[in-house]
Amino acid sequence: MEEEEEAKMNNQQEKSQKKNAILVDGVILNGPVADSKSGEKFVEEVNKIIMEEVVKKASDATEKVCEWQSPEQLRTLLDLELKDTGESHPKLLQLCQDVIQFSVKTYHPRFFNQLYAGIDYYSLAARFITEALNPSVYTYEISPVFLLVEEAVLKKMIEYIGWEGGDGIFNPGGSVSNMYAMNLARYKYFPDIKEKGLSGIPQLVLFTSEECHYSVKKAASFLGIGTQNVYFVKSDDRGKMIPEELEKQVQHARNEGSAPFFVSATAGTTVLGAFDPLNEIADICEKHNLWLHVDASWGGSALLSRRHRKLLHGIHRATSVAWNPHKMLMAGIQCCALLVKDSSGLLKRCYSANASYLFQQDKFYDISYDTGDKSIQCSRRADAFKFWMTWKALGTTGLEKRVNRALALVRYLVDEIKKREGFQLLLEPEYANICFWYIPPSLRKMEKGHEFWEKLSCVFAR
Amino acid sequence: MEEEEEAKMNNQQEKSQKKNAILVDGVILNGPVADSKSGEKFVEEVNKIIMEEVVKKASDATEKVCEWQSPEQLRTLLDLELKDTGESHPKLLQLCQDVIQFSVKTYHPRFFNQLYAGIDYYSLAARFITEALNPSVYTYEISPVFLLVEEAVLKKMIEYIGWEGGDGIFNPGGSVSNMYAMNLARYKYFPDIKEKGLSGIPQLVLFTSEECHYSVKKAASFLGIGTQNVYFVKSDDRGKMIPEELEKQVQHARNEGSAPFFVSATAGTTVLGAFDPLNEIADICEKHNLWLHVDASWGGSALLSRRHRKLLHGIHRATSVAWNPHKMLMAGIQCCALLVKDSSGLLKRCYSANASYLFQQDKFYDISYDTGDKSIQCSRRADAFKFWMTWKALGTTGLEKRVNRALALVRYLVDEIKKREGFQLLLEPEYANICFWYIPPSLRKMEKGHEFWEKLSCVFAR
Repeated sequence: MEEEEEAKMNNQQEKSQKKNAILVDGVILNGPVADSKSGEKFVEEVNKIIMEEVVKKASDATEKVCEWQSPEQLRTLLDLELKDTGESHPKLLQLCQDVIQFSVKTYHPRFFNQLYAGIDYYSLAARFITEALNPSVYTYEISPVFLLVEEAVLKKMIEYIGWEGGDGIFNPGGSVSNMYAMNLARYKYFPDIKEKGLSGIPQLVLFTSEECHYSVKKAASFLGIGTQNVYFVKSDDRGKMIPEELEKQVQHARNEGSAPFFVSATAGTTVLGAFDPLNEIADICEKHNLWLHVDASWGGSALLSRRHRKLLHGIHRATSVAWNPHKMLMAGIQCCALLVKDSSGLLKRCYSANASYLFQQDKFYDISYDTGDKSIQCSRRADAFKFWMTWKALGTTGLEKRVNRALALVRYLVDEIKKREGFQLLLEPEYANICFWYIPPSLRKMEKGHEFWEKLSCVFAR
Repeated sequence: MEEEEEAKMNNQQEKSQKKNAILVDGVILNGPVADSKSGEKFVEEVNKIIMEEVVKKASDATEKVCEWQSPEQLRTLLDLELKDTGESHPKLLQLCQDVIQFSVKTYHPRFFNQLYAGIDYYSLAARFITEALNPSVYTYEISPVFLLVEEAVLKKMIEYIGWEGGDGIFNPGGSVSNMYAMNLARYKYFPDIKEKGLSGIPQLVLFTSEECHYSVKKAASFLGIGTQNVYFVKSDDRGKMIPEELEKQVQHARNEGSAPFFVSATAGTTVLGAFDPLNEIADICEKHNLWLHVDASWGGSALLSRRHRKLLHGIHRATSVAWNPHKMLMAGIQCCALLVKDSSGLLKRCYSANASYLFQQDKFYDISYDTGDKSIQCSRRADAFKFWMTWKALGTTGLEKRVNRALALVRYLVDEIKKREGFQLLLEPEYANICFWYIPPSLRKMEKGHEFWEKLSCVFAR
């Protein structure tokens, strides 16, 4: 009965709406845009699926990490095609289930990857809030809370680097942060570059170790410097940049008439997890007036551990630092800060375009909060917020425990590898990267000559 | 009673865990990392807040768009500081409430902004799924579903541009897409640039209209080309690039010995919403062998409307297109595609670094799905997925209705402005930007000379 009456009322409402309808180009302008009740219900249903299939399974190691399907198979299992007409809610909910089923469970306790370390409930909740509010962090009037939050997080990160002040911005990835730093450095030495470009400027040359992340090369290429002007400095057996080799390369570049301007040291290399000797590198940078950038995208998290922050000894001497809390600190992809020691406004001078439609100079609040103009992006996500929420929830001591636990697990695994037949450790790890060989029974008695290594290197590939 | 027993059991479990504990560096390795039950409950509580305070209020025009506070006030109202110890769940839930309360409600029916047009329940649900799964879209093995979804969406967008094939990638913003295109263009004409950089290459010059988005300048600066090598072509009264002026500028650049390589036409300018005449511009680009990029970040959505796609007449002749479904199509920030006509692998050749730790060549599936190497980013978000979900839910016809509705609303508002005293339309809009003056009573009788315009321009500022 009730339903019938409701239907009647809806019908009457519809009729009266039609009577007063404002019709332009065949569109009823004052009708409802979307059925909000049914939309809300859909979101609620999806939330239930997420809780059951993702969040509550995140602590269950007996579930599969991934239900693997080849691209060809997966294409037949999923209804990927976009059509003229829409699908029903039950069909869409099934699609959501399918997407989850065939996706990798990156929060899974058995998923081992450079970016993941399980689920963080607080950052997840913050990410849900961000998606619901859908902010764009460019001006204070659009993103008041998120801009203040970003400021608070940057301030704290700067404190842990050991600078007295500084500046910074959250970027979509460590690769982008490395680019920002490289561009900022050349702008500092050659401010005309912003208007005039590279022509007329001596050949810029930058330095990084052989073990650096590939984004340094990508950045050099993107910024017009060219990958052959990235000079790769030899690393030692542990993957650390050799300072004497850096000095030689700088001299060499000077002798050939190039303009060395930038050193990208790495704190936590991608493969070996090595930390470059920052203090010694800083000495060389000071001597030769070079910008010292530290790519601590991976290793920066150790700064929060009193036990392990010595890995980054000397980082306070860096001119800029890239640090990604979305890795060991589990803030969720993406959460990447570029931090800059300069507090004279270099970042803004370098990047600002003063677009008059967005960054008006005559607003009714302090426009120094309109930090979007420090970015190469226009719309920008509120990536600092998820990390802020986790930090709020756990405190610094909780984050510290996260780092200590990761590195204690490393110690444990290394001991196990040493004890177990058929496993050979490549080197004692400094950080959370453990490099080892699995030696199959057929090779265990073989002499470790050319043939042995050739055969061993095929074990994983086949 | 039950609770007591549970507590007892937990106690016993704890004791037995302590007995079998693996202790390394003071960390119990085999203890639970986080209290998953309490974490799950927290996420559920936040979800409830989001449903009540954000999603269900999205259709309520009587709510406030924003509870405005100055930066100084807001700082005292929010507990922003990050401390050594964490906060309790009730405190954190209150913080979530506060964040929502003082944030701008971007989904609000009365919030008018270039990026927003209300709430989209389907993309929102997809964004929740993405955050929960926390993928990184670089290789198929990590993001099988999201890579196939991106492929499906790109294919469909390419179809609507009118190309027979092509390539593409989702980027963090239209600004970044414009940069990609500019770099891709110079790589096509000077492939050595990737290794050698800009030195030895003639002075690159690019063209865009006076009304272009500021990201074109930012891109030229970031890529080492320099803003003074962006030649701004005159626009007509409606804000459209004048093709004859473009041709003149290209000739001029040639005559001075520079190397014109790139034209960035705009489909939907930021302020006036103007569409450059793509066909005429394409003629000039063909004649002079220039890359034609169309920044359709804002205007691209009109491609989905049979009634309005004529605004982009000629877009199929573009070499690349930037198109952001996060604007009029409401996909959520960020959702931005760069689309490229080339299907010979130019995008990959230009951007790939072939990092051996991630993009191994000897995987057990077709590695052409590892599209992450087409990107300047390393970890990358699954931005295509939210748009895919909306497209699935509404079908192309539903997206078309969205565009038609927006432009019908424009027609209505323009008529209202014309009828109402004290309002003056600046020009007949082509798209969803309506530029008008509000003329206060004190100025309505004044002659429209110098003094009038000076006074009028202060109305908004004061």
